[in-house]
Amino acid sequence: MTRRLEGKPVADSRNAATRAAIAARGDQRAPSLVSVHRDIDSPFRFYLKRQAKAAAEVGVVFRDEAVGDAAHPEALTARLAALGRDPAVDAVLVEHPLPPPFDFPAAVGELPLPKDVDGVSPGNLGRLVAQRPVQVPAVALAAVAIARHYELPIEGEPVAVVGRSETVGLPLALLLASRAPRMNATVTLVHSRSRDLAGALSRARTVFSCVGRPGLLDRSNVPPGAHVVDVGLSSVPDPTRPGGSRSAGDANPEALEGWADSLTPVPGGVGPVTVAELMASATRAWSWATGRESPP
Amino acid sequence: MTRRLEGKPVADSRNAATRAAIAARGDQRAPSLVSVHRDIDSPFRFYLKRQAKAAAEVGVVFRDEAVGDAAHPEALTARLAALGRDPAVDAVLVEHPLPPPFDFPAAVGELPLPKDVDGVSPGNLGRLVAQRPVQVPAVALAAVAIARHYELPIEGEPVAVVGRSETVGLPLALLLASRAPRMNATVTLVHSRSRDLAGALSRARTVFSCVGRPGLLDRSNVPPGAHVVDVGLSSVPDPTRPGGSRSAGDANPEALEGWADSLTPVPGGVGPVTVAELMASATRAWSWATGRESPP
Repeated sequence: MTRRLEGKPVADSRNAATRAAIAARGDQRAPSLVSVHRDIDSPFRFYLKRQAKAAAEVGVVFRDEAVGDAAHPEALTARLAALGRDPAVDAVLVEHPLPPPFDFPAAVGELPLPKDVDGVSPGNLGRLVAQRPVQVPAVALAAVAIARHYELPIEGEPVAVVGRSETVGLPLALLLASRAPRMNATVTLVHSRSRDLAGALSRARTVFSCVGRPGLLDRSNVPPGAHVVDVGLSSVPDPTRPGGSRSAGDANPEALEGWADSLTPVPGGVGPVTVAELMASATRAWSWATGRESPP
Repeated sequence: MTRRLEGKPVADSRNAATRAAIAARGDQRAPSLVSVHRDIDSPFRFYLKRQAKAAAEVGVVFRDEAVGDAAHPEALTARLAALGRDPAVDAVLVEHPLPPPFDFPAAVGELPLPKDVDGVSPGNLGRLVAQRPVQVPAVALAAVAIARHYELPIEGEPVAVVGRSETVGLPLALLLASRAPRMNATVTLVHSRSRDLAGALSRARTVFSCVGRPGLLDRSNVPPGAHVVDVGLSSVPDPTRPGGSRSAGDANPEALEGWADSLTPVPGGVGPVTVAELMASATRAWSWATGRESPP
């Protein structure tokens, strides 16, 4: 039987630590997180609701801000520069991916490194390569937190990261390959141009999938006995559900049942931990901004 | 018989292109490269001589600068900040690795991205992750140039990078895995904490080794028929040579003869191409600084 790796206990323990850090603040103001988005129907809107809920639970002051339409990408850059200077704001999250004409790296690069709470600016990505991370993408931290919590084989072991996006797959691969405690994985980076997916995964003891293609992983490509951390998130039609759709990961859970050693569910796996890691990162930014700790 | 992949034809062709770009400069000043180093006996001193020679050959104005001793690391940072502001200097190379108490990332981070000619600042490394490179480490460009010149299997193929240093192995892995033309490799990043070197390399069609441990690669770990790009550079004792030592790569060429499909020699492989790529990068920085081209 394939073990189901629930995100909830990992998120609960992370949120408890964040809540305790904030509760001990004395007369300091609470951490402040601003989430900036286009005001359109997108997967990010669902994520926004989760952010607001998690923030209320741990004691982060949360606000979302809609920026103008896609015709004025410079408005986003200007707004982020202003938030970057605002001493009352500790952490800023920007909806991504953002399609052209938005210049996402330039826009988010307006934020000081600690305020770029999701660690997706070129400056933060470079600090990750340089083994001096300031902020790291919450989704990468979440995937790693689940792997650590359930003691999946990582250290010194062959692992695969499927997907090479700048904000998910690449930072996760860099984190897994880093010298950080319980990392040091032998990482294979697999992507849409990899000629032989099954071959590329064949040695992996743990597979992290960050593609966003439902059903990609099944018995034809996941090696038997592997652990699967499913970072993919897609919406698939489902007439039996209210709204007519449901969330799905990259893995086909039915196909992998009894084949994979363990699998994170979607929903309920990496997702809730990502929100918890985002709150932890916002709280870290606040600790630096209020002088409780020094940034790295 | 194992094919010997000489660096000279690759370096010659790169240098010819650089020379032509500089010769066509009209009334613009020539490119200016400053190489900053501790004034001590190190492998970098040998590299300095190569830089001066290559610069003279292609028409780059080269100068080396010794900074004070290790007790005053802030002198290095201040000097780099000044070079960063100097409009007569297009490109600055800083000796690395630099041991503590020097803060290499902070020091080189004082340079604007185009002037950080070896692409080793966190800012440039982050642009590489974000798929918007400005400057990329010359050694990574050189390894890739050799692979392209000799048409080694890269695109869509399993390749391995051995070594995860911030300035060599990681940037090379990111470049090979990128969407750049003729890249898109399925990259496995292997390092000192990888539990099973032979296993980690077993699927690789091309192995890039960036460790600096002579004799590391032999028939016990390189798969038969693989191509080996030897980026390692060490000095080994050799009483038969003037000076009592010779250069060696990570590969044991005798052991791999008749086993590997091809191998870059050390010396004479990646080394000369690295110097040529450095001159090309300095010339690119000059093109940007003099307004002949726009930086990315």
